Amino acid sequence: MTELNHQYLLIELQQTWHQTIPVSKFMQIVPVAFESTEFSVTAPIAPNINLHQTMFAGSIYTLMTLTGWGMLWLQQKLADVDGDIVLADANVRYIAPIDSQPVAKVCWPDVDLTSLAQGRRVKVRLEVELYCNDKLCACFSGLYVSVPKS
Amino acid sequence: MTELNHQYLLIELQQTWHQTIPVSKFMQIVPVAFESTEFSVTAPIAPNINLHQTMFAGSIYTLMTLTGWGMLWLQQKLADVDGDIVLADANVRYIAPIDSQPVAKVCWPDVDLTSLAQGRRVKVRLEVELYCNDKLCACFSGLYVSVPKS
Repeated sequence: MTELNHQYLLIELQQTWHQTIPVSKFMQIVPVAFESTEFSVTAPIAPNINLHQTMFAGSIYTLMTLTGWGMLWLQQKLADVDGDIVLADANVRYIAPIDSQPVAKVCWPDVDLTSLAQGRRVKVRLEVELYCNDKLCACFSGLYVSVPKS
Repeated sequence: MTELNHQYLLIELQQTWHQTIPVSKFMQIVPVAFESTEFSVTAPIAPNINLHQTMFAGSIYTLMTLTGWGMLWLQQKLADVDGDIVLADANVRYIAPIDSQPVAKVCWPDVDLTSLAQGRRVKVRLEVELYCNDKLCACFSGLYVSVPKS
């Protein structure tokens, strides 16, 4: 898989988000970079502001949720398997207010996805970190479930 | 505090959300009812849809987050105290897909807020439940902190 193919995947992922999840388009959530086991996503502050003039807790969570979701979606593409990805549970810890554009980052824990091709669901817990000017501002942990398409 | 005053508070709360948190306006989040210790909030499915044609996990979380936030805001109004309310941490569990307009409900755990008037912050953990056609579809627990305004 070349870097160019990765770029195409990010374009397809952004289109998938913006065309099927209106909130993601409103929030202007955009994939930044994907390098096989690392994936990062960003969103501007303006549409995601709160009454304290920092990033809204709901927007922070949504950005991190989609970062994890996107990582599993990308890994499925790389593994050439398919599944409907849903979030089962999540927790988030807010560490510091975010007053400029943040970047959410996730690493892939090297989970085997081939069971999807055999008709079995896959569960993956992903840890997402949100940075603002290289400072860690929020931590997210989400359990994603991918269900084979029938 | 009369029922009419409660109605005025809900109008003020909705205006606060929609004027200062653009995402809440886009999601069409609206307070439904407030009866001193119970508060409920709703949002339509359409702007909050995901690619499975059910409610997006991020929207579910945001609706529940604001329900808890709104409860603390309302209790501060009733107690005639003021504080900046932020979310410190939260966890959410998704139980069932949501395919029609849900209602998020929270009960007030009878926390004393008078320390805000004495310049001390208050921490309150709130449990929010999301129902769709009377079926429990998601549970949220959030730790809110209110910081006295200086």
